[in-house]
Amino acid sequence: MAGKVLAASLTPLTGDKKIDNARLADHVVWLLGNGCDGVVLFGTTGEGNSFSVDERIATLDALANSGVDPGKLVVGTGCCALPDTVALTAHAVRHQVQAVLVLPPYYYKNATDDGLFDTFASLIETVADPELRVWLYHIPPMAVVGFSTDLVARLLDAYPQQITGFKDSSGDQPHTQMLNERFPSLEVFAGTEGFLLDFLRKGGAGCISATANVTAPLCAEVRDQQNSDDADALQAKLSAVRFAFQKYPATAVLKAYLARQTGHDDWALVREPLSMLDASKLADLDEELEGLM
Amino acid sequence: MAGKVLAASLTPLTGDKKIDNARLADHVVWLLGNGCDGVVLFGTTGEGNSFSVDERIATLDALANSGVDPGKLVVGTGCCALPDTVALTAHAVRHQVQAVLVLPPYYYKNATDDGLFDTFASLIETVADPELRVWLYHIPPMAVVGFSTDLVARLLDAYPQQITGFKDSSGDQPHTQMLNERFPSLEVFAGTEGFLLDFLRKGGAGCISATANVTAPLCAEVRDQQNSDDADALQAKLSAVRFAFQKYPATAVLKAYLARQTGHDDWALVREPLSMLDASKLADLDEELEGLM
Repeated sequence: MAGKVLAASLTPLTGDKKIDNARLADHVVWLLGNGCDGVVLFGTTGEGNSFSVDERIATLDALANSGVDPGKLVVGTGCCALPDTVALTAHAVRHQVQAVLVLPPYYYKNATDDGLFDTFASLIETVADPELRVWLYHIPPMAVVGFSTDLVARLLDAYPQQITGFKDSSGDQPHTQMLNERFPSLEVFAGTEGFLLDFLRKGGAGCISATANVTAPLCAEVRDQQNSDDADALQAKLSAVRFAFQKYPATAVLKAYLARQTGHDDWALVREPLSMLDASKLADLDEELEGLM
Repeated sequence: MAGKVLAASLTPLTGDKKIDNARLADHVVWLLGNGCDGVVLFGTTGEGNSFSVDERIATLDALANSGVDPGKLVVGTGCCALPDTVALTAHAVRHQVQAVLVLPPYYYKNATDDGLFDTFASLIETVADPELRVWLYHIPPMAVVGFSTDLVARLLDAYPQQITGFKDSSGDQPHTQMLNERFPSLEVFAGTEGFLLDFLRKGGAGCISATANVTAPLCAEVRDQQNSDDADALQAKLSAVRFAFQKYPATAVLKAYLARQTGHDDWALVREPLSMLDASKLADLDEELEGLM
């Protein structure tokens, strides 16, 4: 069945707020065994930018050593400092991951398309590996700096073998659909499962979602039943779950939920500057999820 | 004479876009010899967030080895990943710099005051050095995430010995003045020399400015002549120069200007994602500066 569901994995922490690589490996295995076609490490939900380059490299090494197939992984590598992006990208490519998901450098809000083009050109030419596959990560609510349609076209013209995907976390469904129509060579992923069925019907690649950390089985049902009579009802249920979670800070609410589901309290821990979810909010969420999960 | 002028130093590059430590040392010496009370390394103008932790550490080491007095330096150390901020801060404190200038972690635009407080608490308690002096770096146009007045008050209550300065690059003069009145224990610096005289007259600490890379002598005249009959005319001239430069991207225009002044073409180079100034714009600037510089 066409279409892919990827989870933007959470990054579990130990009591001293270091990455818990063993628990992460377990979670990735769970996601891949419960409907996900792939897992993104170190995206926004995964607090990627809150970890140092060394921490991120050590965790990918640990995951690969644990037996997770790197070909199922997409690794967030976009930093403000180009040498960091290059180091993380080259390391991920050496592990033969499926792709890297690359934020634009997001400190200088006045960066121009020329400057962003130069950044990606330098990244691709410095890594200089024919196996490199770059997915552009467009998330204006966090990065503010984004990829204009013109910039995407320029990058595709210059690097058609390397630029193969786009994650649109603008939250703007018409924008996601426009990109999908305009750039047939790109796998365009919506940053939410909230319109997964509609997007799959229009030929979209699928979704890369934060909430898929808990909704993976429901996402997979929509993907697998997209041509059945149940499809719309399944999507309605999935959307209701998504929208219930979406009212809370994503990383904190998903970690708090998994802490309770798994009985591992440390799952609720987040790295600064995020804050843990107030326990009372989980009770509110439960009410909204009643009958859905 | 009361009041301090600090330049937010540019970071010169070599032809392969690495930091040119020798040229930076020369520039810092020039700034300190031409009116600056101190120099900030790796602020926004200095492209701090475009360099890796290793690059930033190596450059501070090189500057200290070149004979620059670290006590005259304030070092930008705020990154998105707290371990990076800790590493840069601990290193700068070991060099006995005057202070570190710390951005809030700026990726998560929904970070709360609680999360930002936790970040600074963790930084201060992890570095755990009584010599640590933190200047808070408030620059909403770039970081988007900023320091609320409540957050500043909480941090000062908790860490009165460590939190000693504030750079307000909001561009909002009443906000800068409000902070200066509300927090007498803080040295509050305006992020521009555009209202230096007025701010000094109201008891402000001074300015930390990008354009001071070229206006340092004029800034120093305003500081030194603040009680003379010439003060207002000097400030008017300084403001006119500031506003002329301010029409262009700060780092690129200042580097292009220095490239021409010094005859070193490499001065014009910027690290991605910034772009070099179009040469025609330097001619436009010259017209606006006629009779001023």
